[in-house]
Amino acid sequence: MNESFSKLRVNSERMMAAFEQLAAIGSTGDGGLNRPTFSEAHLAARKWFRAEVENAGFEFRTDGAGNHSAFLFCGDKNAPTLLFGSHLDSVPNGGRFDGALGVMAAFEVLRTINESGINLKVNLEAIDFTDEEGTHLSLFGSSAVAGHLRDEDMQKPYSGRENFLQALARAGLTEEGLFSAHRKKKSLAGYLELHIEQGKRLERAEINIGIVSAIVGYGSYRLSFIGRADHAGSTSMADRLDSGQGAASFILSAREAVMRDFPNCVANVGKIDFAPGASNIVPARADLLLEFRSPDADQLARLDNVLMQLANEKAEQFGLKLLSEPLGKHLPNLMSADIQQTFQKSCANLGLSSVILASGAIHDAQSLVDVCPIGMIFVPSVDGASHAPREFTQWEDCLNGANVLLQTVLRLVS
Amino acid sequence: MNESFSKLRVNSERMMAAFEQLAAIGSTGDGGLNRPTFSEAHLAARKWFRAEVENAGFEFRTDGAGNHSAFLFCGDKNAPTLLFGSHLDSVPNGGRFDGALGVMAAFEVLRTINESGINLKVNLEAIDFTDEEGTHLSLFGSSAVAGHLRDEDMQKPYSGRENFLQALARAGLTEEGLFSAHRKKKSLAGYLELHIEQGKRLERAEINIGIVSAIVGYGSYRLSFIGRADHAGSTSMADRLDSGQGAASFILSAREAVMRDFPNCVANVGKIDFAPGASNIVPARADLLLEFRSPDADQLARLDNVLMQLANEKAEQFGLKLLSEPLGKHLPNLMSADIQQTFQKSCANLGLSSVILASGAIHDAQSLVDVCPIGMIFVPSVDGASHAPREFTQWEDCLNGANVLLQTVLRLVS
Repeated sequence: MNESFSKLRVNSERMMAAFEQLAAIGSTGDGGLNRPTFSEAHLAARKWFRAEVENAGFEFRTDGAGNHSAFLFCGDKNAPTLLFGSHLDSVPNGGRFDGALGVMAAFEVLRTINESGINLKVNLEAIDFTDEEGTHLSLFGSSAVAGHLRDEDMQKPYSGRENFLQALARAGLTEEGLFSAHRKKKSLAGYLELHIEQGKRLERAEINIGIVSAIVGYGSYRLSFIGRADHAGSTSMADRLDSGQGAASFILSAREAVMRDFPNCVANVGKIDFAPGASNIVPARADLLLEFRSPDADQLARLDNVLMQLANEKAEQFGLKLLSEPLGKHLPNLMSADIQQTFQKSCANLGLSSVILASGAIHDAQSLVDVCPIGMIFVPSVDGASHAPREFTQWEDCLNGANVLLQTVLRLVS
Repeated sequence: MNESFSKLRVNSERMMAAFEQLAAIGSTGDGGLNRPTFSEAHLAARKWFRAEVENAGFEFRTDGAGNHSAFLFCGDKNAPTLLFGSHLDSVPNGGRFDGALGVMAAFEVLRTINESGINLKVNLEAIDFTDEEGTHLSLFGSSAVAGHLRDEDMQKPYSGRENFLQALARAGLTEEGLFSAHRKKKSLAGYLELHIEQGKRLERAEINIGIVSAIVGYGSYRLSFIGRADHAGSTSMADRLDSGQGAASFILSAREAVMRDFPNCVANVGKIDFAPGASNIVPARADLLLEFRSPDADQLARLDNVLMQLANEKAEQFGLKLLSEPLGKHLPNLMSADIQQTFQKSCANLGLSSVILASGAIHDAQSLVDVCPIGMIFVPSVDGASHAPREFTQWEDCLNGANVLLQTVLRLVS
């Protein structure tokens, strides 16, 4: 890499000004913001980004899935494109950094490189992917680019079919047009993303940059423990088939098993319902949503087995039946080893500490894993908070992340 | 007691015919019925009962709370009245026997005594109390008779204020008129009730009649375990404040404590909710409804203390806060010792086995505990089932119960 390029840095003031203008759109007044995909606030943020791109003199591009980008042509019609970006949508009442930091850093990197006059080998494209958070369909825009959109998913979006179609119409999109966002493999040189960690590992270890090795795989189930409804006053404790006991025992033992035998893995029961749900009736049925994650495919399969066996044991222990409905499964997605090494060099060059870690959360990068080399970095989240108004990252850390992204793009394209 | 009276028995065929006609009103076709208070089916059952009473030549009486009765005057204007009966309303999709058996047996006892030409010392009244099950307000009709109705209860009925007022209007009642059902203490000589056990004790011990010593007291709370919402993928297990763990651990340990240290007591968690309630978010808050019962006032207080201490311990163990909101408390209600002895004599005279036991469920009798002597008997429930279509009692047991009620009324009034 040309030595003058290794001293290139993003413009902190310009990036901060853009970040803060963006954070005001959909602001909830408590440090957070509310920009679910194709809500009024989200559409306003997209409109603002388009204007920023055009005002800065870049070519604005969009596609059938509503992805928005700033495009920098290298002069070669047959050259592939290096993508980098993130997403402008948020969870309901989420934070300012999740996704937005990645898009603003990508756009600033593009401006910095454009101003530097560097001779590009590939096209550069700073992208805002549609609906990463899954207001309608998780990783929607990146899945469309990768050619992974399936008709059946669009029949049952999280928001409901009717809301989904209305949302597409608000964004000027059509269901038929979505598939046209699919890009050919050889058109993409790679995909890079800067994101907040959404965990405490970097903060606790006082490390500047997390270099992502893999996005964890996950499995999820609806587990139903089936007992019998009885009068909770007149039925002795010994005579009950209490579905709640089986569910409670599973919730406790699942955590214990993960903490004891599956380091780096997590499991969660985030929702539970007892039926019939009256204080004076022994619960006949307990339905819960289980989710678990691992960075390793074999470990994920072992964890799946252990958790299902535990659920069966707990059902049996309390005389219950168990129904288990798999809701989803995803293998871990590995980041490019080359890109990880390039991130490490960039960190070293910038005097920043770095660590290799897995991402517990899903990200757009994983959509592209079978399309092009992918790479991701994390910057520290204060107190690990995310998806909440208290989500926060120090500006210095945001800036560090943007400069690592800049240096890494430069190393990959020059 | 006159020896000829001791040989008196109810008319099995007549009682069965009436019971089956009644069971057809609101039948759900699966052995059960659906007669929530002041539903169309319940109003039809009330209308049918009124016609039965009048066709049999009895005086039909009703009051401001919608209680319906067949009245037999003893000829003395100043004589008190011995009440006996139960209720015609059901829980949603309940069984045919809960309440209905008690009313049909009471009415048959009245007819049998009337036909026998016995010289009464007190008036007799076979009563159907309004809304025992609490579609709107638990023990509503009996509470009104006892003078326990409170204005504040009527502001927040289970069914909601609007539904409650509409239901009253459907039954031709007014809110203002409800209080007029209050009867003077000295007007009542006692209250007797025959009911199904709703448990397995009699069936398991192969005993014909359960003589109730007390209706258990109960306490109930809304317990809220408060943790923190975190991303369930990116937050390590050790870093979580998972409200679901505290709730699950409490549910398990509450059952263990009751089974180990509180014989004859019960506890139930019949409803639970996690918030925010998403599979990929660590639950920040777990709200559950706890209920517990004991036949002894001191034991009830100890149980209350132990359960609240357990909840606090479990919250602390998982780094959670605990909020506890008391929802209700009721001391055990003791049955008259004289009436228990009279039930025992009646059983012995009829060659039926009997046992003294506590009622785990609430019943209208308890409303009258401070108004007049009260007494209750249970007949066996097949498999202990109740509040469900499979609720069942053998006809022979129903008949035994009616004859014990008959013999006991005769012993008390002749």
